[in-house]
Amino acid sequence: MSTKLKAALLGASGYTGADLLRLGVLHPQLEFTALTANTHAGKPLGAVFPHLDGLGLPQLQQTDDMNWDEFDVVFCGLPHATSQAIIAEIVENHDRPRIIDMSADYRLRDPDSYQKWYGNKHIAPHLQQKAAYGLSEHYRDEIKEARIIACPGCYPTAALLALIPLAKAKVVDAADIVIDAKSGVSGAGRGLKQNTLFAEAGESLSPYAVASHRHSAELDQEISLAAGQDVVVGFTPHLIPMSRGELVTCHLKLAEGHTATDVRERLKASYDNEPFVQILEDGVFPSTNMVRGSNLCKINVFEDRIPGRVIVIATLDNLVKGSAGQAIQNFNIAFGLEETTGLQQVALFP
Amino acid sequence: MSTKLKAALLGASGYTGADLLRLGVLHPQLEFTALTANTHAGKPLGAVFPHLDGLGLPQLQQTDDMNWDEFDVVFCGLPHATSQAIIAEIVENHDRPRIIDMSADYRLRDPDSYQKWYGNKHIAPHLQQKAAYGLSEHYRDEIKEARIIACPGCYPTAALLALIPLAKAKVVDAADIVIDAKSGVSGAGRGLKQNTLFAEAGESLSPYAVASHRHSAELDQEISLAAGQDVVVGFTPHLIPMSRGELVTCHLKLAEGHTATDVRERLKASYDNEPFVQILEDGVFPSTNMVRGSNLCKINVFEDRIPGRVIVIATLDNLVKGSAGQAIQNFNIAFGLEETTGLQQVALFP
Amino acid sequence: MSTKLKAALLGASGYTGADLLRLGVLHPQLEFTALTANTHAGKPLGAVFPHLDGLGLPQLQQTDDMNWDEFDVVFCGLPHATSQAIIAEIVENHDRPRIIDMSADYRLRDPDSYQKWYGNKHIAPHLQQKAAYGLSEHYRDEIKEARIIACPGCYPTAALLALIPLAKAKVVDAADIVIDAKSGVSGAGRGLKQNTLFAEAGESLSPYAVASHRHSAELDQEISLAAGQDVVVGFTPHLIPMSRGELVTCHLKLAEGHTATDVRERLKASYDNEPFVQILEDGVFPSTNMVRGSNLCKINVFEDRIPGRVIVIATLDNLVKGSAGQAIQNFNIAFGLEETTGLQQVALFP
Amino acid sequence: MSTKLKAALLGASGYTGADLLRLGVLHPQLEFTALTANTHAGKPLGAVFPHLDGLGLPQLQQTDDMNWDEFDVVFCGLPHATSQAIIAEIVENHDRPRIIDMSADYRLRDPDSYQKWYGNKHIAPHLQQKAAYGLSEHYRDEIKEARIIACPGCYPTAALLALIPLAKAKVVDAADIVIDAKSGVSGAGRGLKQNTLFAEAGESLSPYAVASHRHSAELDQEISLAAGQDVVVGFTPHLIPMSRGELVTCHLKLAEGHTATDVRERLKASYDNEPFVQILEDGVFPSTNMVRGSNLCKINVFEDRIPGRVIVIATLDNLVKGSAGQAIQNFNIAFGLEETTGLQQVALFP
Repeated sequence: MSTKLKAALLGASGYTGADLLRLGVLHPQLEFTALTANTHAGKPLGAVFPHLDGLGLPQLQQTDDMNWDEFDVVFCGLPHATSQAIIAEIVENHDRPRIIDMSADYRLRDPDSYQKWYGNKHIAPHLQQKAAYGLSEHYRDEIKEARIIACPGCYPTAALLALIPLAKAKVVDAADIVIDAKSGVSGAGRGLKQNTLFAEAGESLSPYAVASHRHSAELDQEISLAAGQDVVVGFTPHLIPMSRGELVTCHLKLAEGHTATDVRERLKASYDNEPFVQILEDGVFPSTNMVRGSNLCKINVFEDRIPGRVIVIATLDNLVKGSAGQAIQNFNIAFGLEETTGLQQVALFP
Repeated sequence: MSTKLKAALLGASGYTGADLLRLGVLHPQLEFTALTANTHAGKPLGAVFPHLDGLGLPQLQQTDDMNWDEFDVVFCGLPHATSQAIIAEIVENHDRPRIIDMSADYRLRDPDSYQKWYGNKHIAPHLQQKAAYGLSEHYRDEIKEARIIACPGCYPTAALLALIPLAKAKVVDAADIVIDAKSGVSGAGRGLKQNTLFAEAGESLSPYAVASHRHSAELDQEISLAAGQDVVVGFTPHLIPMSRGELVTCHLKLAEGHTATDVRERLKASYDNEPFVQILEDGVFPSTNMVRGSNLCKINVFEDRIPGRVIVIATLDNLVKGSAGQAIQNFNIAFGLEETTGLQQVALFP
Repeated sequence: MSTKLKAALLGASGYTGADLLRLGVLHPQLEFTALTANTHAGKPLGAVFPHLDGLGLPQLQQTDDMNWDEFDVVFCGLPHATSQAIIAEIVENHDRPRIIDMSADYRLRDPDSYQKWYGNKHIAPHLQQKAAYGLSEHYRDEIKEARIIACPGCYPTAALLALIPLAKAKVVDAADIVIDAKSGVSGAGRGLKQNTLFAEAGESLSPYAVASHRHSAELDQEISLAAGQDVVVGFTPHLIPMSRGELVTCHLKLAEGHTATDVRERLKASYDNEPFVQILEDGVFPSTNMVRGSNLCKINVFEDRIPGRVIVIATLDNLVKGSAGQAIQNFNIAFGLEETTGLQQVALFP
Repeated sequence: MSTKLKAALLGASGYTGADLLRLGVLHPQLEFTALTANTHAGKPLGAVFPHLDGLGLPQLQQTDDMNWDEFDVVFCGLPHATSQAIIAEIVENHDRPRIIDMSADYRLRDPDSYQKWYGNKHIAPHLQQKAAYGLSEHYRDEIKEARIIACPGCYPTAALLALIPLAKAKVVDAADIVIDAKSGVSGAGRGLKQNTLFAEAGESLSPYAVASHRHSAELDQEISLAAGQDVVVGFTPHLIPMSRGELVTCHLKLAEGHTATDVRERLKASYDNEPFVQILEDGVFPSTNMVRGSNLCKINVFEDRIPGRVIVIATLDNLVKGSAGQAIQNFNIAFGLEETTGLQQVALFP
């Protein structure tokens, strides 16, 4: 008996959409019955993503042609600003489906913050406030209930998994959080930009959006909430010559009376029973090739040379735990399925 | 009820061994109950391959400590020359397990050829001749019955999938087969060599073992058999700055009266119902990123500019269809399981 | 006393233009007094190419604003089709400067061939026929005299350096020349294309333009001329995940009575005194990292396994000997300077 | 008239040695008359570094066979611990040559610090204290006079160029310096290590030696000196999948009353007339591909999101300004030559 839940994917021509399909086609309770990609409507998926050819997935269509009532769930991989109107339309005019949004449009609870960082006024601020922030390990209860699940950005996923337990427990000083982040090039998407050409990004390394990256808004929001105080984090991302993978190096000040050991124990306690978050053994360096293609986040803690400081490093695959994998994890939570279903792929190495 | 078949993996510290585990842990009818790696015996697998940590696999042990009767199947990922003695010992002194060998030791039926190419006399030439050559699509009957299944080399897998149907049908001239092959660096293994250092192999490209690569022996053997004539193939491999992936560009002379269309039709007819071999649509260029991490081989046919010539290009992942994936495919065949079991991973892109 | 020759560079926002400047600023007898890049006119060069910032080069301007009589030489790095009109205008209406064109517009002597391969009718076929084909080592006399020097494409430079001496001496069969070529991604230029994005081209390998690449026209033209017979070559290029570098693997049939040794000796004799073309010692594999950033072409000869066949492999940096370096070499020849002036940069490795 | 200074290079089989030769052969006043590489003695240089073939350099020999009195200068590219004895022997028993050491052996003035970080007692602590620390821009007077010039490590060169002026001027808090550093793989040298294999380091990113890297000792020494107080810096290096290039992201606390603008002005004032250190224009992100192959260090300053903090980012080529290039710069200073001689190579991009 087929008990598969019917899903649509909006934005199937982007990398996160593609990775959702890579994982989703092996999920035993999920069936993609519609895929949209406006500029490619009418094409088979394999024309846009040859690696997804031959999997029996539907051809690409326009978003306008969708009958929302046919779906149990809509995954949204559209760019920010595009998502908000479609999602609002669905939620306000249809009883189903539930929405799992991989864009930024419903992540921020404060409409002013959204407008400041994303440059336009949100059209549905009331929905924005009701969406669950889809950081699976920290928002399970909300995800179970929410109509809209707003999956976090890739950097915030890594950084918040490392920082929320520490901010909550006040073992580090929330006012002095420096996140030095590094990402592979797929994080910039499939759009054509000079700086993501192979000949430009290859054999090179550079910071970008220093102190001005939009993910800062989510980081501030969630760490403030965890710490119970208004926090502004330092966030400096770098572009790394690899396709996938992300690593955040958090340079932190210990709260008075705390040690690196406390930090480690706090993280271990928080994630002890989590299938996708692992605190590495003492001294092991997290590396993106431990997690490539998998839904894992691996974290470790190092004493700094500067007395009273600690370094916490987290790594994940930006397209999986940082986006499509976490979206499926949230789908599993939302629909009461075993949380690891469809997410047991082992990391691809080398 | 556990109906899992018990497996040992010999040589779990190499890349092919690791990839066998990556795939194998998700195979519902396969259970690895022993892993060997002599120089790392006593260590947990995660100490050698961090991406395989936490999967519940047994720790590494010495080959000498194995009780062969406990296993249904032994996968052998040892270097050539090392494999032959262990395998002979098992086969001659034990009723089980069956052997799926990823080394070169049982691929060649002619002991002289083995000695010429591998530099030492084979210790069990009688077994060599009884082993099945594990090119799944072309040797299913033999694989079903054989005690020893000798999985082909990565290059031969790609080239033979493209060439055997053509040689058999005599649509190309078997005496004039030029294979220009390209492989990612993982093909050279995990051993320490200067030319596979990142700073040496990165941002560079070079041929190697021109007209002297050991895979030539398999290519000659199998194409001669298919063509019904003694064949010596041209084989020029190149090292490409990527970790995984392989592509062979076969420059071929059409047999009198034949066309590129005949070649395409012959290949389509041969692989029409095959789950892992796909002839691409006319004009589509095979690319290693269509198959990375998957068990697929994708092939296409192009008319050459030189009248009477044709170009056939095949791509696969050297560690999967070129080694560990094909080993599992052969395991499925050998034990009467659905051939695609455990092999439905979608290619990882980007 | 300044005896520098005054140069303009048209198309300073492309990779070949940039590499001409990288080399040219250190040339003691060359001074760039104007740079054009229409879409970037008015910007400093460093805004377009940060690595060329601070070298004292002029800012970018429109081509329309140039006073051609001010220059001794114009280097043209514009796309094909754009070049022909500007060059024709200069040559027909001005006594100077001389033109060194890195585009394809004046490479082909046959207007029909140009129209067939480049899709438009050439506006100045009479000039096309008078241009020198700028393969420095083989056309020095013509280069010395010509008003227009049409530098060869990157692939033809590598392939023709390997093949012209062999075709002329008839040691190989010109009717059976198979060129399997590999290039880094910079060969595709700085324009925005999906297939040259890092996340697409990285960790991947694919053929492209199989049997339909425009460089085929030059190859046919020059090999036909050398061989004294109409030749159609096989030419299959591949895109390799590296920024720079090119390698052509020529699979050749020996002419009756000839051996690989003859091939080697012919090449050695041809290039014995050439500063930029080197026949490697027997058995050494050419590698792009031997030549990266330099004006060198390195070649070697290997006996094929197929009796009567030979493999000749040549490597160069597509942006240097394959374009900008050869342009400067031709400039030196054209103006009677020491041919190696400004071209003595050692390859950058690693 | 040849007035070239005669040089020996000890350790010509490592990457820094090779890059010294790449640059040095074009230096008009420098002539390498001896190259050592003990394990390769007797071989031509091209057998070890094919890209250096054909440059007329001497063949490799044993260090024991050297007659030190023949040289004006000895460049030492040996591993630490090996260098100290040879250098001490030369200095104590010969009036010439002068020594430019690229190893760590003479960088630290405190013998206890050397022993702590490098694990063995220094054999010539009296010489260690007399050596000049070869950070060219900050130690010119000492370099002019010194018998031994100890070139800084690659990371310290980048970090100290950014930090010394700030520590001296007390515009930042020297007690709270967090350096998040990133390096290409060539920084790990040419020795065979598993983690620098292409298949391991490629498409991956990881921290290493967190809070325990030996370059910390130099950083502490020099920043303490500049700041006039005992300083312990935070230093977290990361391995990046590229061959060359290095970037340090310094997360700093402004001293009371100071701003990011003060930091920028201080750096601009310090390096205004320096040929090799450039403060980028406001908002431009430093990138390793601006400096690859050149002797440049490019720096920029960014206001942090956290009030009272600032981010200073510096990039250089680890093998050039981070080692061999700075060695030649020091040679020029030491011998009274124009400081930029032989170092005007433009960065190689792409």
